[in-house]
Amino acid sequence: MFKSAASVERLATQLARLPGIGRKSAARLAMHILKLPDEQAFQLADTIREVKEKVGFCSVCFNISESDPCDVCTDQRRSPATIIVVEEAADAAALDKVEEFSGRFHILGGRLSPLDGIGPDDLHIKELLNRITDEVTEVIIATNPNVEGEATAVYLSKLIRPLAIKVTRIARGLPVGSDLEYADSVTLSRALEGRQDF
Amino acid sequence: MFKSAASVERLATQLARLPGIGRKSAARLAMHILKLPDEQAFQLADTIREVKEKVGFCSVCFNISESDPCDVCTDQRRSPATIIVVEEAADAAALDKVEEFSGRFHILGGRLSPLDGIGPDDLHIKELLNRITDEVTEVIIATNPNVEGEATAVYLSKLIRPLAIKVTRIARGLPVGSDLEYADSVTLSRALEGRQDF
Repeated sequence: MFKSAASVERLATQLARLPGIGRKSAARLAMHILKLPDEQAFQLADTIREVKEKVGFCSVCFNISESDPCDVCTDQRRSPATIIVVEEAADAAALDKVEEFSGRFHILGGRLSPLDGIGPDDLHIKELLNRITDEVTEVIIATNPNVEGEATAVYLSKLIRPLAIKVTRIARGLPVGSDLEYADSVTLSRALEGRQDF
Repeated sequence: MFKSAASVERLATQLARLPGIGRKSAARLAMHILKLPDEQAFQLADTIREVKEKVGFCSVCFNISESDPCDVCTDQRRSPATIIVVEEAADAAALDKVEEFSGRFHILGGRLSPLDGIGPDDLHIKELLNRITDEVTEVIIATNPNVEGEATAVYLSKLIRPLAIKVTRIARGLPVGSDLEYADSVTLSRALEGRQDF
């Protein structure tokens, strides 16, 4: 594409390998990076290096972290009584933006998916069970509300029930601000099932 | 977002500044880069640095290049008799994929746009006129087929006509593979205007 500048061509090729970036956006991004102020481009390059060099996994909750155990697991303001179980680190990041939650996380590292050959031993399930001591009063299962996420949730709930006082599942229903008219029927049926008293 | 790993958070913020990448895609990209094999991520970081360090502009045609003059301007197989004038380096890269063209490029570095305060002195127009010597037989104006690109083309053609044997404008018409039914009327009118004998 950019025959006149081999490194720009190479950058476009490498960017096109990232998810959601096609050949054309990659070329546009490469040109944009070329035009960035030096400092800003070097910063981006350095941060990519830094992420790979510094970030690992917390050996307690398996969240991404620059320290082990991570800041969440060592934060004394966060109660160890509640553990919220999610599939991926990005899910924990999303939940962490919700002010109400002040418990700790456990990242499974995926979901059960027999078709893809992902069984219980491929996820951090054993480590989760080991974390459920007497001080844990509730385990909230927040796997994704899709077939595999639900199956994982059911599987986990069966293992956890004998160990914890309370095992809960996040509510599935209509997203706030959405339109009942356009909701799919599975979501509607879940919203009815999960109805609550005023 | 990724409170647990400051550098991942920082990477997401920096990626979100790139054009066409929103907060959510930036977070997903940051996670993806974190999971890349070390080698691949470091390569990306190095290429970003390299692009900024190596790539400059050709002093003849103002295309991006790692050498000056660039490979196209020094390529003896390309005829110096034809110069194709484009707005940006990316346009030259697109035209360069067309096998038929074996002339040289001239990159204006933008288009005339009085509203944005871009006048003739902000573009490489003077340098273009200086390039039009006796050995140049045709100047093809390939600015974009929109209002500003057309205005730039008309402006250039007036300046070039006294200097060059032939000044042409790339054809505007229906894109190959498109549907006449869905074409806009301006394009249709250009397609009619530009009709050719069988």
